[in-house]
Amino acid sequence: MGQPQQPDGSEGAKPPLRIGMVGYAFMGAAHSQGWRTVGRVFDLPRRPVLAAICGRDADAVRRAADRHGWAAAETDWRDLIARDDIDLVDICTPGDSHAEIALAALAAGKHVLCEKPLANTVEEASAMTVAAEVAYRRGQLAMVGFNYRRVPATVLARNMVAEGRLGTLRHIRVTYLQDWLVDPEFPLTWRLRKELAGSGALGDLGAHIVDLAQYVAGERLAGVSALTDTFVRERPLPVGATSGLSAVSSAGTGQVTVDDAALFTGRFTSGALASFEATRYATGRKNALRIELNGERGSLAFDLERLNELSYHDGTEPGAHAGFRRILVTEPDHPYLDAWWPPGHGLGYEHTFVHQARDLVHAIAEGRQPEPSFADGLQVQRVLAAVEESAEKNSVYTTVAV
Amino acid sequence: MGQPQQPDGSEGAKPPLRIGMVGYAFMGAAHSQGWRTVGRVFDLPRRPVLAAICGRDADAVRRAADRHGWAAAETDWRDLIARDDIDLVDICTPGDSHAEIALAALAAGKHVLCEKPLANTVEEASAMTVAAEVAYRRGQLAMVGFNYRRVPATVLARNMVAEGRLGTLRHIRVTYLQDWLVDPEFPLTWRLRKELAGSGALGDLGAHIVDLAQYVAGERLAGVSALTDTFVRERPLPVGATSGLSAVSSAGTGQVTVDDAALFTGRFTSGALASFEATRYATGRKNALRIELNGERGSLAFDLERLNELSYHDGTEPGAHAGFRRILVTEPDHPYLDAWWPPGHGLGYEHTFVHQARDLVHAIAEGRQPEPSFADGLQVQRVLAAVEESAEKNSVYTTVAV
Amino acid sequence: MGQPQQPDGSEGAKPPLRIGMVGYAFMGAAHSQGWRTVGRVFDLPRRPVLAAICGRDADAVRRAADRHGWAAAETDWRDLIARDDIDLVDICTPGDSHAEIALAALAAGKHVLCEKPLANTVEEASAMTVAAEVAYRRGQLAMVGFNYRRVPATVLARNMVAEGRLGTLRHIRVTYLQDWLVDPEFPLTWRLRKELAGSGALGDLGAHIVDLAQYVAGERLAGVSALTDTFVRERPLPVGATSGLSAVSSAGTGQVTVDDAALFTGRFTSGALASFEATRYATGRKNALRIELNGERGSLAFDLERLNELSYHDGTEPGAHAGFRRILVTEPDHPYLDAWWPPGHGLGYEHTFVHQARDLVHAIAEGRQPEPSFADGLQVQRVLAAVEESAEKNSVYTTVAV
Amino acid sequence: MGQPQQPDGSEGAKPPLRIGMVGYAFMGAAHSQGWRTVGRVFDLPRRPVLAAICGRDADAVRRAADRHGWAAAETDWRDLIARDDIDLVDICTPGDSHAEIALAALAAGKHVLCEKPLANTVEEASAMTVAAEVAYRRGQLAMVGFNYRRVPATVLARNMVAEGRLGTLRHIRVTYLQDWLVDPEFPLTWRLRKELAGSGALGDLGAHIVDLAQYVAGERLAGVSALTDTFVRERPLPVGATSGLSAVSSAGTGQVTVDDAALFTGRFTSGALASFEATRYATGRKNALRIELNGERGSLAFDLERLNELSYHDGTEPGAHAGFRRILVTEPDHPYLDAWWPPGHGLGYEHTFVHQARDLVHAIAEGRQPEPSFADGLQVQRVLAAVEESAEKNSVYTTVAV
Repeated sequence: MGQPQQPDGSEGAKPPLRIGMVGYAFMGAAHSQGWRTVGRVFDLPRRPVLAAICGRDADAVRRAADRHGWAAAETDWRDLIARDDIDLVDICTPGDSHAEIALAALAAGKHVLCEKPLANTVEEASAMTVAAEVAYRRGQLAMVGFNYRRVPATVLARNMVAEGRLGTLRHIRVTYLQDWLVDPEFPLTWRLRKELAGSGALGDLGAHIVDLAQYVAGERLAGVSALTDTFVRERPLPVGATSGLSAVSSAGTGQVTVDDAALFTGRFTSGALASFEATRYATGRKNALRIELNGERGSLAFDLERLNELSYHDGTEPGAHAGFRRILVTEPDHPYLDAWWPPGHGLGYEHTFVHQARDLVHAIAEGRQPEPSFADGLQVQRVLAAVEESAEKNSVYTTVAV
Repeated sequence: MGQPQQPDGSEGAKPPLRIGMVGYAFMGAAHSQGWRTVGRVFDLPRRPVLAAICGRDADAVRRAADRHGWAAAETDWRDLIARDDIDLVDICTPGDSHAEIALAALAAGKHVLCEKPLANTVEEASAMTVAAEVAYRRGQLAMVGFNYRRVPATVLARNMVAEGRLGTLRHIRVTYLQDWLVDPEFPLTWRLRKELAGSGALGDLGAHIVDLAQYVAGERLAGVSALTDTFVRERPLPVGATSGLSAVSSAGTGQVTVDDAALFTGRFTSGALASFEATRYATGRKNALRIELNGERGSLAFDLERLNELSYHDGTEPGAHAGFRRILVTEPDHPYLDAWWPPGHGLGYEHTFVHQARDLVHAIAEGRQPEPSFADGLQVQRVLAAVEESAEKNSVYTTVAV
Repeated sequence: MGQPQQPDGSEGAKPPLRIGMVGYAFMGAAHSQGWRTVGRVFDLPRRPVLAAICGRDADAVRRAADRHGWAAAETDWRDLIARDDIDLVDICTPGDSHAEIALAALAAGKHVLCEKPLANTVEEASAMTVAAEVAYRRGQLAMVGFNYRRVPATVLARNMVAEGRLGTLRHIRVTYLQDWLVDPEFPLTWRLRKELAGSGALGDLGAHIVDLAQYVAGERLAGVSALTDTFVRERPLPVGATSGLSAVSSAGTGQVTVDDAALFTGRFTSGALASFEATRYATGRKNALRIELNGERGSLAFDLERLNELSYHDGTEPGAHAGFRRILVTEPDHPYLDAWWPPGHGLGYEHTFVHQARDLVHAIAEGRQPEPSFADGLQVQRVLAAVEESAEKNSVYTTVAV
Repeated sequence: MGQPQQPDGSEGAKPPLRIGMVGYAFMGAAHSQGWRTVGRVFDLPRRPVLAAICGRDADAVRRAADRHGWAAAETDWRDLIARDDIDLVDICTPGDSHAEIALAALAAGKHVLCEKPLANTVEEASAMTVAAEVAYRRGQLAMVGFNYRRVPATVLARNMVAEGRLGTLRHIRVTYLQDWLVDPEFPLTWRLRKELAGSGALGDLGAHIVDLAQYVAGERLAGVSALTDTFVRERPLPVGATSGLSAVSSAGTGQVTVDDAALFTGRFTSGALASFEATRYATGRKNALRIELNGERGSLAFDLERLNELSYHDGTEPGAHAGFRRILVTEPDHPYLDAWWPPGHGLGYEHTFVHQARDLVHAIAEGRQPEPSFADGLQVQRVLAAVEESAEKNSVYTTVAV
């Protein structure tokens, strides 16, 4: 285990970091798990406190507070932000409300963690970025929740690219394949409505892989050529509360107003060629976020369905003994791993939220801009906008705005 | 997510289950994580309370209490057991102290969870089993911590065997391969000393695979033929505190008094042939607990290094389309999974302790004997004893005592 | 084995099919192996005779004839075609000479097998297709050598799609990744010169995957949006004879005039979205032709580096037991397999040429048009032309000509 | 391809090596393919000539000669051996006739290739070994057909072990899993009758893995402890001709007189611990010959179902980047591969027979003892005898006779 010692001897003696979270569905549960666990595993400069959780349904939010361990519950996010006993606002709502809440929270002097995508439009994301930069000068910090940057294997991949182990990049190919929309009877949850979700597979899955690919590659997409489609254009309306990913159908139907799948090719700034695919129609693929990078000196491959592994080919080795090796990313000198279990005892999906919390607490304690910043989130939004523009313009190559 | 609703609306309203834990190293951290998380994810009939933790080093146990969230700290396990505000004693110490602590805890009217192996000898395990059976009649419950019974994929495997999907079993082959002793300079931690650990790879890894194989197969080993060996007989002594799995070496050396590896073949009660191997010298294998079962109608295979997957071959399918399929065990209708994340969002090693806690809390609330019982732990001990006897007697086939 | 019996009792009694082959490098060796072996494994209606081989270097072609078992050697393909004792001309030269040789062979009344790509331009391919159609009416048959249609696993995949096991197709993603150009010192062989090879990765690898994807899917690409690039624009000139894939460098350098990599997305006629990538710069990927199809009812995946396997997900199964299964395509009821070895005894790359020969001999004996026809080869060429046009026109979506 | 040049310019100018083969079923077809192909791919010092094939059924052997390309057919192996125009006798019959034929062939001055296992008993194998040693002094050479020594990946593995890349070996684990007997209605072919096959899974599969493990490890088994069993003791009698692996059932039944499965553990001479399993009841495993070696410095793993791959872990690398790598054994500097296809274009099962033929032709031309010798075959037989003895004596550890 090798957990580092606490010099002062006591968890309680650390200054608290009081969190107020908006939203309590899938992401709310995941973030709660992250905040609750982080201080039990990592040595932190501040002690996270689950101060208050907020949601519109009073009963439901009360139950969520009980379940997830939040001290208080609010039903209006404005009240949450108004509280003096909150240092950090953690936004886990659908994308249409990100901008309003984040802007208010920053204006109220809070630090902000905002789930991805940063916003549903470039305009909103721009406003949020400006606000975050202003707030930064006041000592407030803002971060976007691209949690797949916190998988030990993806951090290892980025580090290996940064060390030059791949040399000049030639190819980056990325997919994010899910299959929960294959059934045409799956109901029209908020994730399928443009006014709430902004876009479909593109904003949900595509945002993840654009951010992750740029993060690991250490460079950005310069332009894209895109195809998108909506395979099933009408779906049954859901009954009662839905979590976005699960729901019960009713008799009526409604229009799907987002993309079902988005494919795009592109060029990175170095000239590397890239291929992206995001879909919810890949039968049998449950969470297949896969990324492969080929460089002059080596290659790396990662699959989120096997998140404790990183595949690496060292192209500088003699050919007779070279091959893609499966690094089990569970060694104590792998990212985040010195705080966890012995080698081979793998981590899961939710650990990304623990690591995200860890990194944010450190950044706040040190007054240092955490990554990914709102500016990073805005840049991803610009890529998505270029994808949508290209798709509308007959796939013509479209430069990403800077 | 689909988390079930709480009818009474409040976590706080549930009767508490007050836990006192002995030991705070690797297993202590893992059990703490389990107790702290279980009520946040699963609907439980009782509310686990991390009441007190116990260890001999006052400073260290105080820090562990802070770190892991225990309300109090004790330095003598007898004091812990004597406390009125403890309902369940959770024993996470090395095997040489299991019997003494468990017997005292049962005598004091506590429920007991005891880490595996149940004890270092059949005699101790027998005494514990008798005590547990007596205590059961008083309403106390005792369970052994074979946590690999709580991986969703292994539970699914057991269920599939129990449903008859494999038919008559022909072969069961199991390995548990690690490599942390390959380096002859790794120091002589407690796990390499017979007086503390009882045995080496056999008791540590072999106990796991004997229990898991019998659990999944739904039947028991009738007899075994064994080979064991100690490859490196002298190792440097460790300096300072060690966790069993990591340490710093000193200049002096000492004798390794346990086995480095144990191989055995055997027959299950149905006549199926079995092969077992436990070793800490399998270079590159970090936690390769692998089990495969071949039956007349199908086969199953599992690898702990990819714990979210179960491999299944349905032998009743037409040959042209048959093959081992990789079931991603992350669907809501898989064991334990309705409380966790969407499909494809995998779990990790520590979740086994959350699930173990869940199952034990339910059993206690219902006054029902949890599995694996101390009797199950004793039976595993008898298999290990038969292995040791066979190894001493030139590998002759040795019947497992009943 | 189950090799079918020959009713007439004697191989020698069958009418011969006398073959004349042009070219003796990589493809020449592979085709020779196919022709030499096919009658030893399969029951054929005609007996292939390796009548004559042709190449410009008299010594080299004589050695190749000896080596590969051809009865005679010619140095001018016109002489080969003029021979009376040749029934079938097998063209294994670089693409720039395909049209001239094939047209002459058809005019001379021969059957023709032409290596892929059919030609270097749509114009040549059109002329060849017209000539083949005219010749067909005279009883001559012409086929293109897309040998990856003859892997048992790809045939099985096509059959499963045709049976409706995948339902409506949603996604087709295909890559053909090699890495033999990663080293910038690899010399400028004929495969890197537009005047000989027509194009680079596109015509060599892209042609294969376009044909294979359309074959397995049972439908065609309607349009594409493409990006291509040449990463290394100047390379050393080779010294002496080269095989296209291996060579020795000299001091001088020359311009690479073909693409190093080609990526394109597209739509199939059914509306399925497709992604293609062909490259010679994917470090560590040696022959990674991978295809995955996702349909409403199931999915299939294939990787040429593991060509005895087909991965299949049956989406109609209960989710709890569903998963991608690895079908080992070596059963006697798999395509071509009743003539080979027992289950699990895999085939290799060259067997595709044995199977190609088998299918062509049957078609000729039955006077039936073999597949893929020159028209199929022309259609692939039209896809490649659309790719090149899109790449030149800023990736704009470009309809494939019909 | 890089096929080496023939200095003398002509295949026909080489001295012939005239082969007479006894047996024409599965192994006969495989050996024929080897002899027919070897000179077309490799540069050989002598030219193999398929002179005569022998079998008891005159019609069938005539058809086999036609099919596989043998110039003549014989119905009595004594006549074959008596022919002056035969240099090498290739024995492909069931094990009960190996000794008689091999002894006669050696007495007649022929070189001998004998399929594995060398014989059905140690006594026969001893006599054959003595005869081979006597014949060797006369310039005759004898070899056993353990063809899995000719897979490029297994040769690479042996070479890597011999180079010291694994250091001191600790563990060797080997399985050979098939499933063709799972169905209790599969008929009683010759492979299930002791008087013909000698033993069951043990002699058929076990002989292969004992030889392969010793070959790769470069050392021998010192002793074993074994369990064997026959799961289905009565089976329907077959109707008509059978190939051993496939047949049609009749109404009558007969006793299975061989083992269905054999498991044994053992010690190698270096002290490494070994585990072996051979079975025909591993549902879904078709040809799963798997071997893993763990040494102080590294590990290797091989699976015959993916025979173009070798898995290698370099234990001397920094832990953070170490992992089992998949070497695609298709590079020109891999064993046998310079004569075949470009990287990534895999070989199949039958290539082992081509390579076996190549190695034997070279040994004969150089008058050098080929490996594995009859003495090697005898030693494997002694291991199998020790396994049978241990299984009969309650699994007691049994030393392999030297």
